[in-house]
Amino acid sequence: MTLFYSDAEVSAALDAPTTVDAMRSALLAAYDRRLTAPPRTSAPLGGGRMVLTAGCLTGEWYGYRSYDTFGHPESQQLVVLHDGRTGAVRAVAVGEELGSRRTGGLGAVAVDVLARPDAETVGVIGSGRQAWTQVWATAAVRPLREVTVYSRSAARREAFAARVGAELGVTARAVGDPASAVTGRDVVVLATTSPTSVLDAADVSPGTHVNAVGFKQQDRAEFGPDLLAAADVLATDSPAQAHAYTPPMLAAEPPHVERLHDLGAVLAGAVPGRTAPEQISVFCSVGLAGTEVFLLDRLVRVGAATV
Amino acid sequence: MTLFYSDAEVSAALDAPTTVDAMRSALLAAYDRRLTAPPRTSAPLGGGRMVLTAGCLTGEWYGYRSYDTFGHPESQQLVVLHDGRTGAVRAVAVGEELGSRRTGGLGAVAVDVLARPDAETVGVIGSGRQAWTQVWATAAVRPLREVTVYSRSAARREAFAARVGAELGVTARAVGDPASAVTGRDVVVLATTSPTSVLDAADVSPGTHVNAVGFKQQDRAEFGPDLLAAADVLATDSPAQAHAYTPPMLAAEPPHVERLHDLGAVLAGAVPGRTAPEQISVFCSVGLAGTEVFLLDRLVRVGAATV
Repeated sequence: MTLFYSDAEVSAALDAPTTVDAMRSALLAAYDRRLTAPPRTSAPLGGGRMVLTAGCLTGEWYGYRSYDTFGHPESQQLVVLHDGRTGAVRAVAVGEELGSRRTGGLGAVAVDVLARPDAETVGVIGSGRQAWTQVWATAAVRPLREVTVYSRSAARREAFAARVGAELGVTARAVGDPASAVTGRDVVVLATTSPTSVLDAADVSPGTHVNAVGFKQQDRAEFGPDLLAAADVLATDSPAQAHAYTPPMLAAEPPHVERLHDLGAVLAGAVPGRTAPEQISVFCSVGLAGTEVFLLDRLVRVGAATV
Repeated sequence: MTLFYSDAEVSAALDAPTTVDAMRSALLAAYDRRLTAPPRTSAPLGGGRMVLTAGCLTGEWYGYRSYDTFGHPESQQLVVLHDGRTGAVRAVAVGEELGSRRTGGLGAVAVDVLARPDAETVGVIGSGRQAWTQVWATAAVRPLREVTVYSRSAARREAFAARVGAELGVTARAVGDPASAVTGRDVVVLATTSPTSVLDAADVSPGTHVNAVGFKQQDRAEFGPDLLAAADVLATDSPAQAHAYTPPMLAAEPPHVERLHDLGAVLAGAVPGRTAPEQISVFCSVGLAGTEVFLLDRLVRVGAATV
């Protein structure tokens, strides 16, 4: 019997602590190679491509996420979970919610591992789905005191701040420029669709941790090399994916690449993360393959436990 | 709102005439290039691969079928239909039924196009799911008088014959050897998992049409070169796929390949099919990509029409 999940059902069943815990487990599984996650593959269909990111947790499950590049207005993703012993399809999720909660969960693990233990303020640039799930998940790893948010649309940043207050119970303010959003913040989230820098690294205070979720490639990045130069600690959720971008990811090129660590390795204690409160740490989120399936598996287990 | 179909729901909603009509349309759409169907792609996952066959009907829909090569006992396929204008996932089917009805429908189009107009007897070698859907769909294009079936398991061939009688209302007999199943039959179906020949071409009577559904590659085929040598007419549902096998498909190699026609081209009247009653015709079924999505689209339309 296959279980089906819509966005509404994913939202209702998958809370932030569960999501973050699943992504912590996924990063560790990828680090110790129990999670197989090959590069994405795709099929050309004229005006767009059908893309598949597959994953396999040894002995447990296999599956994939599919999405396309047609750019349609309501394009939906699919996440599919197969039982690793029988091959049966245990669950299918249709929509965007599982994927963006997954990305939020990975970001929150980065905050938990790399931000200062006493971090309590978050500055956000961006007000879309990805910005939201970053804050939503981060609230599960640090007791937040205040969120500031900037995006180009005043209406959207005001709505974002109102949602943070209403759903997370955290004081939130919409502000009129990027510098006001990030200055003096313990955690900064960049989650825009901008191909050019939205941030002056000089506005990032010592001791800040930055999650970069949007574009981060050469000539197509929501931040400039100044942020990487300012960073004492650099990490990503998938070094393999980080090295597979065309054009290359900024942090995967010299001189930064030598310092770009696997977040899973930091989590496992194999390489150091932050070693001093005044350091700036930057997490380059690339979307470790297989993690959507990992999260769907967790969702099925949570659901089964509550029946 | 995404529609979900299990095998039971596909079986209940998709009858043979609808299936055959959809596959006729699909073959014509592929022939005139409205149906885009690139070669399959896959992602390696250790002990198996996740495989994607994608398709796009210009202006209408796009989607894919996924399956894997782990060889698990209850492995299930998925077929996904996206709306071509919005990108939303309109329907998902989980299981084997849609795929095997699709293959049956393609086979029945071949029978309709290539078998004698007065064909009324069918001889089957094989008693599995694929054998069943070939006969099930063929009954929609010819008024069948008798079906004979052979497979190695006496219990399974008896059950198959009983099912033909019960579900199709056609007289059916299980027989104890392949020659008895096919001799003097108007239509022959080969639908086994045998890697070696199950058929002596000398047992195929003049005027017979043969659907070959199982293995058909060099050193791995349920029939030998003798069948191809005996054939006056050769067709396949996807020349592109026919030429993509490794090792090569028997009919895609000299001297047969010059005579191997696209069934869609025969259907469109662009190349001749059978031109005399005593000719032997052979259809090499390879599974035109995109046809599962085509059939799922038809299933959604049929369902919508009956609500």
